[in-house]
Amino acid sequence: MLSTGFNVVGFNWMSSPAATKLESMVMDWLGKMLKLPKSFLVSGNSDGVLQGSTYEAILIGRENIGKLVVYESDQSHCALQKAAQIAGIFLNNFVSLRRSLRSAIQADIRARLIPLFLCATVGTISSTTVDPIAPLCTVAKEYGVRVHVDAAYVGSACICPEFRHFIDWVEDADSFSFIAHKWFFTTLDCCCLWVKDPSTFVKALSTSPNKATESKQVIDYKDWQIALSCRFRAMKLWMVLWSYGVANLRNFLRTHVKMAKHFEEKVTTDKRFEIVVPRNFVMACFRLLPPPVKDHEDETLRQPSELERANEINCKLLESINSAGCIYMTHAVFGGVYMIRFAVGASPTEDRHLNLAWKVVQENAEAIIKAC
Amino acid sequence: MLSTGFNVVGFNWMSSPAATKLESMVMDWLGKMLKLPKSFLVSGNSDGVLQGSTYEAILIGRENIGKLVVYESDQSHCALQKAAQIAGIFLNNFVSLRRSLRSAIQADIRARLIPLFLCATVGTISSTTVDPIAPLCTVAKEYGVRVHVDAAYVGSACICPEFRHFIDWVEDADSFSFIAHKWFFTTLDCCCLWVKDPSTFVKALSTSPNKATESKQVIDYKDWQIALSCRFRAMKLWMVLWSYGVANLRNFLRTHVKMAKHFEEKVTTDKRFEIVVPRNFVMACFRLLPPPVKDHEDETLRQPSELERANEINCKLLESINSAGCIYMTHAVFGGVYMIRFAVGASPTEDRHLNLAWKVVQENAEAIIKAC
Repeated sequence: MLSTGFNVVGFNWMSSPAATKLESMVMDWLGKMLKLPKSFLVSGNSDGVLQGSTYEAILIGRENIGKLVVYESDQSHCALQKAAQIAGIFLNNFVSLRRSLRSAIQADIRARLIPLFLCATVGTISSTTVDPIAPLCTVAKEYGVRVHVDAAYVGSACICPEFRHFIDWVEDADSFSFIAHKWFFTTLDCCCLWVKDPSTFVKALSTSPNKATESKQVIDYKDWQIALSCRFRAMKLWMVLWSYGVANLRNFLRTHVKMAKHFEEKVTTDKRFEIVVPRNFVMACFRLLPPPVKDHEDETLRQPSELERANEINCKLLESINSAGCIYMTHAVFGGVYMIRFAVGASPTEDRHLNLAWKVVQENAEAIIKAC
Repeated sequence: MLSTGFNVVGFNWMSSPAATKLESMVMDWLGKMLKLPKSFLVSGNSDGVLQGSTYEAILIGRENIGKLVVYESDQSHCALQKAAQIAGIFLNNFVSLRRSLRSAIQADIRARLIPLFLCATVGTISSTTVDPIAPLCTVAKEYGVRVHVDAAYVGSACICPEFRHFIDWVEDADSFSFIAHKWFFTTLDCCCLWVKDPSTFVKALSTSPNKATESKQVIDYKDWQIALSCRFRAMKLWMVLWSYGVANLRNFLRTHVKMAKHFEEKVTTDKRFEIVVPRNFVMACFRLLPPPVKDHEDETLRQPSELERANEINCKLLESINSAGCIYMTHAVFGGVYMIRFAVGASPTEDRHLNLAWKVVQENAEAIIKAC
C-alpha cells in the first residue's frame, strides 16, 4: 500500500529519472523471467512500460479511420471493444471472430476496408482458454495486421517453465501484456506491456518534447501512455519482485494452480456437477446439472429446454452462494452455457478456503435440488 | 500514501458499492464547497467523478470525425492536444485561438467543418491567466459547441469566497474540472470532474451492463472513464477533506497565495527584475532584465535583439538556480518572452523557503550579470 502511494510528479523524465529507471529495470527483469524474445527487451533496443489497464495504449492511424478493422477472438474481454470505441474504430469494423481469421480479413479487403489490428488472448477472462498464437500471427503478418498478445489474467504464470509454452511464438507478435494486479500480487493498477517498436507510441502520444527527450538518451514514459503524468507504478512491481524473489513467486503461482486443480477434482467426483471448460490455470468453470423433470408439471405450457433449465438453476445457485457472504464467485456464459467460475489467485488463499468454498457450493446446490 | 494504496477491485458498482458511494459523496461535498451550480450536483441529478488527468474523458462523435473542430485558448496546456489526438481529431482541426472564437467558428462552418468542443482555461499552466468564461460560453452555445472549463491548477482556490469569482458563469459550461493533486494536497492522480449530463459518458464508454447498472439506481464509474477498472481515488480526497476541514483548507490556500504575493513584492522591489505576467494565484512569473550592452563587442557580427538577450540570460539563470539543487523552478514562454516561474503549493512550504528561494535567485542573477 505504501509503495502504491509513493508520489512522483511524473510529468516528464527530468521530474524523476529514478522512477523511469526503475520502471525500465523491473520491466526488463520481468521480461527475462518470462523469457520474452530480445526484440521486447532493453538488449534488443526496446523496453517495457507499466499501464493502468491492458488497452490504454492502442494506437491508430487517422486518415482512413472509418475503414480500419480490429479483430478479436469471440472470447476476448470487453476491454478491447471499449479501447476500439475510444480510438474511434467504427462499431461495424470491430470483429469478434467466429470463423477463420484469413477468411475474415479477405472479406474485409474485398469490401475495401483496411485490416489493422488483431488481439490474441492467452487465458481469456471468461474461461482462461488460449488462442493459437502461431497460426494467428502467420496470417496477420501476411496481411500487415499488427498483433497484440493479451495474457492479462494468466501471463504471470509464464515465469514458470512448465507454463511458458502458452506464450510460445510471442516473438511473432508486435506487443505482449499481462496484468500484475490480477495474479501477480500488486494492487490496482499495474499492467505490464512490452512492445517491439516503442517509437510508435512516441509518434502518436508525444507532447512538449524537451532537451532530455530529444537527446534520445532517456525514456519519457509520459509519451507511452494516455494519461499526461506518470505515477510510480514500478515501485509496486519492484516490491513484489524484491519481497518474494523469483523462486518463491514461481512456487506461489504453482500452489494456486494446484489448489484450482484440487477444486476441479472435487467437482469431477460429484456426479451432480460437471466441468464446462477444461481448466488451464487457476480457474475452474463448472455447473450443476439440472435434476430430472418431475412428471406432474403442467404439460399444456411450453417446457423449458434442458439448457434453459440448467442455466436457470446455475444462476440461482450462484446467487445463493454469494448471498451467504462468506465466499464470492462469478459467472460467464460460454457457448450459451451459464457456468460458475471458481478462481484462486489472492495471496492469502489456502486449502481451507478451498474446502470451505466447495462445502458452500454443495450445501447450496442441495437446497436448490430439493426445491426443484 | 496509505489511502492511495487502498485497493478496490473496481470493475463495476457491485464489486465495491462503498467506493462508488464515497466518490459520489466527496465530489458532492467538494462541489458545494466550490458553490457549483445545481446542474453539476447530485441535487440536480448529476454527479462528479474522479479521473486520472484532466482530459482522460473527452468524448467524441464518430461519423464525421474528420470534420470535427476543437478550440482552445492559445495558453492552454498541451494535455488538450494530446486528448484530441487520441480521440482522433485531425491535427488541422485543432485550433489554438489567436483571434475571436466567433470568427474562428464562422470560418470553420464556411469550410464545412463541424465546431465541436471548446476548452476554456481558468488559471493556465504557463502563467495562471484566466479565459473570459461568460462571453466564450455565449458564443459557444449559439453554435452548439460543448464547453469544458479547465481550472486544473487553481480550481481548488475557488473554495475561498474571495476567489470564487474566477469561475463565475461556470453554470453556462457543460463540464468543469480541477486537479486535486496539483494544489489540493492529494497524491497523483486525482482530477475532479463535474458534468451536467453524465449519460454522455455512459453512451460512449459503457461495457457489459449488469443488473445493478441497468436499474439506474447506481453509478458505474467504470463507464465514466477510459480505464476499465476504477481505483479508490475517493479515499485520497476524503482524507484531505476529513483531516483539514473546509476552514483550514481555505486558510491553507490563502497562506500560499500570500506567500506568492510576498515573493512577487520582493521581485518588484529589485530593479534588476520584472514581473512578466500579473500574478492571480500562487505563481509569480518574472525575469531578469538584461544588463546594458558593453561597447567593446564585435560590431561586425549581427547583434542579438534585446528580447533574444533577455531570453538567453533568463534561460542561463534558471539553469544555474536549479543546478544548485536546493530549489527547483520552471519556465514558460509567454508571447515570446522567456520567464521564470516561482510556484507555491506544496503543504510544507513556509516563509523561510520563500526567503531562501529569493536569495538563491538574487545570488545566481548577480553572478550572471557579472559574467556578462
